[in-house]
Amino acid sequence: MTRNELYANIRRKKSFLCVGLDTDLRKLPEHLLSEEDPVFAFNKAIIDATADYCIAYKPNMAFYECMGLNGLQSLYKTIDYIRASYPDQFIIADAKRGDIGNTSTMYAGSFFNGMNADAVTVAPYMGQDSVTPFLGHEGRWVILLALTSNKGADDFQYMQDAQGTPLYQKVLLKSLEWGGNPDNMMYVVGATRAGMLTEIRRTVPDSFLLVPGIGAQGGSLAEVCRFGMNSNCGLIVNNSRAIIYADKTERFAEVARIKAMEIQREMESFL
Amino acid sequence: MTRNELYANIRRKKSFLCVGLDTDLRKLPEHLLSEEDPVFAFNKAIIDATADYCIAYKPNMAFYECMGLNGLQSLYKTIDYIRASYPDQFIIADAKRGDIGNTSTMYAGSFFNGMNADAVTVAPYMGQDSVTPFLGHEGRWVILLALTSNKGADDFQYMQDAQGTPLYQKVLLKSLEWGGNPDNMMYVVGATRAGMLTEIRRTVPDSFLLVPGIGAQGGSLAEVCRFGMNSNCGLIVNNSRAIIYADKTERFAEVARIKAMEIQREMESFL
Repeated sequence: MTRNELYANIRRKKSFLCVGLDTDLRKLPEHLLSEEDPVFAFNKAIIDATADYCIAYKPNMAFYECMGLNGLQSLYKTIDYIRASYPDQFIIADAKRGDIGNTSTMYAGSFFNGMNADAVTVAPYMGQDSVTPFLGHEGRWVILLALTSNKGADDFQYMQDAQGTPLYQKVLLKSLEWGGNPDNMMYVVGATRAGMLTEIRRTVPDSFLLVPGIGAQGGSLAEVCRFGMNSNCGLIVNNSRAIIYADKTERFAEVARIKAMEIQREMESFL
Repeated sequence: MTRNELYANIRRKKSFLCVGLDTDLRKLPEHLLSEEDPVFAFNKAIIDATADYCIAYKPNMAFYECMGLNGLQSLYKTIDYIRASYPDQFIIADAKRGDIGNTSTMYAGSFFNGMNADAVTVAPYMGQDSVTPFLGHEGRWVILLALTSNKGADDFQYMQDAQGTPLYQKVLLKSLEWGGNPDNMMYVVGATRAGMLTEIRRTVPDSFLLVPGIGAQGGSLAEVCRFGMNSNCGLIVNNSRAIIYADKTERFAEVARIKAMEIQREMESFL
């Protein structure tokens, strides 16, 4: 999917919501457990309920990998279902990969060809040759970790060099040298770090930011929009738990739809 | 596997060699391609040929994930085979994972319970809560990226704070605060960075270092041993391509055995 297609979807749906498919077998409504593939049944119901109000889905790989081959099978079915039923949705494989060049090349193949995701999250610690193999796939995206939403982000990401430049800024600056641009690279910036968005926007004014941490992790949508939005919106804001686990009864999909709609309405007010 | 068991295996086999199972379908000997599961057939032959000369196997997840469910099936079979036939081998899932706390907990479950690996490589960028969920699994290990063997390591890992402490040192120091110790944590230090080992040994004198980058990537075993060895060896040195792809004919396993033996002999001379 191109940047302009993403812009168009955001304008048309008046939403920049990404629904995180962090599907955990232990948290599913009980009545789904008798389904042949409860994880896929849950995802399908959530997708059908929320697709009107979001522009992206983000399955987190850990939740599927921990169920072994069955989990991955459920994930592939989920992605195929989104592709077939909602072709305007942007699909993010939240994998946080990154390895030496020849290995990152294999990961890129896995996610872009094998899994058919539009984007994959990548960790920057290993530098240029761990990231660039994910670039150069027409219409596919790297989403590079910059400033994450978790507490552990404080450990290294704010570390400053002798000139006072923090690590997360160096990640942004280096990524631009590597050929990252607003058409092939986005950045993860946690909603819990909204105060840093002004500075980040100075470095990457036109790039999309993928923002986790709204809801369960405590970030504020208003603050994210105030400091992080650009003239094309430029934000994809993720919400997982507050939507997909809003209700655990047979009404779970209906409640998820209402929650997604509420967030979309709030987003509309900021657009 | 405990630290003392690892020490004992190293002493008994006079080896600290880890064979990297970076099995790439495009590089397999042609006669294996007619097998029902060529990847497993290759791995089994390599393992049977090299087990006398190594103390660990390290499958890199990317090589299996890029073949989809079949690839992962081949990997599970490979690990089950090592467990059943060579229970003294240490199994490292080279996955370079790391995510927010609840997600890292799921990854730990995948690798330690689902896959039954002894150790998993973890990327430090997201800090404490992305790493600690992998700790506290009896007899299992985190192998934290410190100073990697690739060129991209120069981009961020040497970045110095105002006091002159580089990022990779901060990773070591922080990991000790998080409860990492020589019984549950090792560190990746590339063989191409042998000059930095003296300083690293000052920070983590008793910890195992997993050293990739010998062979294809150009690192020197003599240098690694000179600067990185401690009184219990303290090294696990990985070699992938120079062993497993040393020959592409029907003699591949025999040649792999000879290559592994040559490396073991060299290691013996340093012990």
